[in-house]
Amino acid sequence: MMRTRPLKVALLGCGVVGSEVARIMTTHADDLAARIGAPVELAGVAVRRPDRVREGIDPALVTTDATALVKRGDLDIVVEVIGGIEPARTLITTAFEHGASVVSANKALLAQDGAALHAAAEEHGKDLYYEAAVAGAIPLIRPLRESLAGDKVNRVLGIVNGTTNFILDKMDTTGAGYQEALDEATALGYAEADPTADVEGFDAAAKAAILAGIAFHTRVRLDDVHREGMTEVTAADFASAKEMGCTIKLLAICERAGDGASVTARVHPAMIPLGHPLASVRGAYNAVFVESDASGQLMFYGPGAGGAPTASAVLGDLVAVGRNRVGGTTGPGESAYAALPVSSMGEVVTRYHISLDVADKPGVLAQVATVFAEHGVSIDTVRQQGKDGEASLVVVTHRASDAALGGTVEALRKLDTVRGVASIMRVEGE
Amino acid sequence: MMRTRPLKVALLGCGVVGSEVARIMTTHADDLAARIGAPVELAGVAVRRPDRVREGIDPALVTTDATALVKRGDLDIVVEVIGGIEPARTLITTAFEHGASVVSANKALLAQDGAALHAAAEEHGKDLYYEAAVAGAIPLIRPLRESLAGDKVNRVLGIVNGTTNFILDKMDTTGAGYQEALDEATALGYAEADPTADVEGFDAAAKAAILAGIAFHTRVRLDDVHREGMTEVTAADFASAKEMGCTIKLLAICERAGDGASVTARVHPAMIPLGHPLASVRGAYNAVFVESDASGQLMFYGPGAGGAPTASAVLGDLVAVGRNRVGGTTGPGESAYAALPVSSMGEVVTRYHISLDVADKPGVLAQVATVFAEHGVSIDTVRQQGKDGEASLVVVTHRASDAALGGTVEALRKLDTVRGVASIMRVEGE
Repeated sequence: MMRTRPLKVALLGCGVVGSEVARIMTTHADDLAARIGAPVELAGVAVRRPDRVREGIDPALVTTDATALVKRGDLDIVVEVIGGIEPARTLITTAFEHGASVVSANKALLAQDGAALHAAAEEHGKDLYYEAAVAGAIPLIRPLRESLAGDKVNRVLGIVNGTTNFILDKMDTTGAGYQEALDEATALGYAEADPTADVEGFDAAAKAAILAGIAFHTRVRLDDVHREGMTEVTAADFASAKEMGCTIKLLAICERAGDGASVTARVHPAMIPLGHPLASVRGAYNAVFVESDASGQLMFYGPGAGGAPTASAVLGDLVAVGRNRVGGTTGPGESAYAALPVSSMGEVVTRYHISLDVADKPGVLAQVATVFAEHGVSIDTVRQQGKDGEASLVVVTHRASDAALGGTVEALRKLDTVRGVASIMRVEGE
Repeated sequence: MMRTRPLKVALLGCGVVGSEVARIMTTHADDLAARIGAPVELAGVAVRRPDRVREGIDPALVTTDATALVKRGDLDIVVEVIGGIEPARTLITTAFEHGASVVSANKALLAQDGAALHAAAEEHGKDLYYEAAVAGAIPLIRPLRESLAGDKVNRVLGIVNGTTNFILDKMDTTGAGYQEALDEATALGYAEADPTADVEGFDAAAKAAILAGIAFHTRVRLDDVHREGMTEVTAADFASAKEMGCTIKLLAICERAGDGASVTARVHPAMIPLGHPLASVRGAYNAVFVESDASGQLMFYGPGAGGAPTASAVLGDLVAVGRNRVGGTTGPGESAYAALPVSSMGEVVTRYHISLDVADKPGVLAQVATVFAEHGVSIDTVRQQGKDGEASLVVVTHRASDAALGGTVEALRKLDTVRGVASIMRVEGE
């Protein structure tokens, strides 16, 4: 049943991921052909620096004119691994207009303009697949879109950024501070020269937006995601976490809020119990925990980045889109029918671990406890520690809204006896 | 874009899984309709005992004549959750002949007759989906068939039977013997009254056959799977495992053999290092570890059985097949193009932990070591322990073929100084 006319594939970008995609397309050509039902042919590669040597790629295929490439009109599939918003967005929509389906690894673009891109794909009857945009090689988009399509997902809780997990794991296991761990991550190539997108949570927030959208059949944009980075996590926080039987991870959390009539999405560092499967995710690995009505708790684990793993996800999509082309059909498009409102961070309900520096004199605990009570935040445990005339209070709360906790902290700061709020960290995964 | 004519679904079997499928089809009808693009209608339910009360199911839909039901000719999808070979096999092929696609949870049937069923589906241009047949709710078939379609899978290593994992976990954590742990599993409903299919590894072997077939694009039948149960695992084995920094799991292992020109599939108890992600899979949970060229190591974790989780997998397939019907297409069928030979157990290469009861006199170790050397099995470590005039030798080997190890053990048994071979266990996951 093999079709002989090859599927023509254009590659936009030929960096770490793109070159690996091109390599596997060549070395595994027979396998891909058998799985798709038609041979695949690399029809063009758009790059910024054409003079760079690209092993195994016919120089005649290389061009700097990506726009002309996607306008050729004879392409079946465009693989976009440039990243960033422009020119990727225009190139993808142009590809649809000129008859190609698209496989993308572009989380930032999908998180910002997913709805418009899906609409463009649907308008032209083409596929838009992007398994590689979230958690690298880990099959996650397809299981959420398809395997769990008959279930109701209530929560997605994941480690979706390998750089920050490497740093936090290093801090946890060696007692290193943030800067020292970041330096090691940079030296080993786990962190980029400018690590902002990772350590400030932008990368994870884009993935959270994509995951929330798919999990809840609702459009969630990057701007809807509450984002806190992990640059202020300290060795002292890890010591506190250990005392609680926890570790600290940068988590992306998407969940139904309140009675399920709205959704929230957020990224922030959080304490998580050592017994939780996410606590033992080491190094630069990613893992995503999915909780749903019928299937209970599922976890997906694997390498979250890297050329080869990301290429594996791209090629899985390439096979699926290729099969669809051969069969004259398209796969599932955007599913946003539920259209739930996205609630603000203030409505998120969770537990909190708060460290306060306080005056070491009688009555302080009573004052502090009163402030919590006035804001409706119930205290689970309090621990007092004296140190050199000063004292610290560690308060762990029961579940409370972020708004209530925020009000509590604001009021605590106004107390004369509270010298400072040393840290506030959410406690998740219980 | 909603189609108004509903998709007609027939349910074969209405036990723990079937009743949950029916329940979710009713309670989540709107969600399913939105995700499929057409409403779904329960058109008939075939059962053995029609007098049993079935909450929420219109008694007019219930029939004992499954054959007449699948022959109706107006069905879109038949969901088979009867299990076993017949009448399930005939009902499924009859369903294809009369125009329906099929969603099945039947691992035994798929492992035995998957090729014939796929051929029947293809002949009639229908879908055959069976995500629920392996590892319950865990999305595994679809990720392997689709997400990893652009990658080369080298090994699948999994805990795919919840009953045996519950028993082994109990033995590990409480020091209980096999019978005691089995009794508790039975009392808690994790083991059936006749636990043979689980504890003798038949259930896991069927799943191994299905996984190997999909992972290696090769037909692998139940008979091709080497199978050893876990009824002979003892508390002493767990003690030995602990000394090695390991625990014991019943593993399904599918891997490329030798130079990758053949495949093997096997189920047996094995020691696995505590640091391996599979070692911490507790209770009745399942987890499957997949190693591939590009994506490295992936793990899929979740509940491996139970009505609701299995129903979630069935409904995910129902949505996919329903979408295909609405779109007038079918999903990927059998992929067996690689057609690799299946090697016998003798060609499997792994490490071994062997406990010998030996005479406590000089020269025994030299004798034993000579036998290993003569069979080309290289020893990693030996530990001697004296006990009451007798002694035990614990030998851990380097990697060797199962055939070489078998020859070694046969020769050891003939030594006068070897009183008995107390246990042989493979060491995996390193």
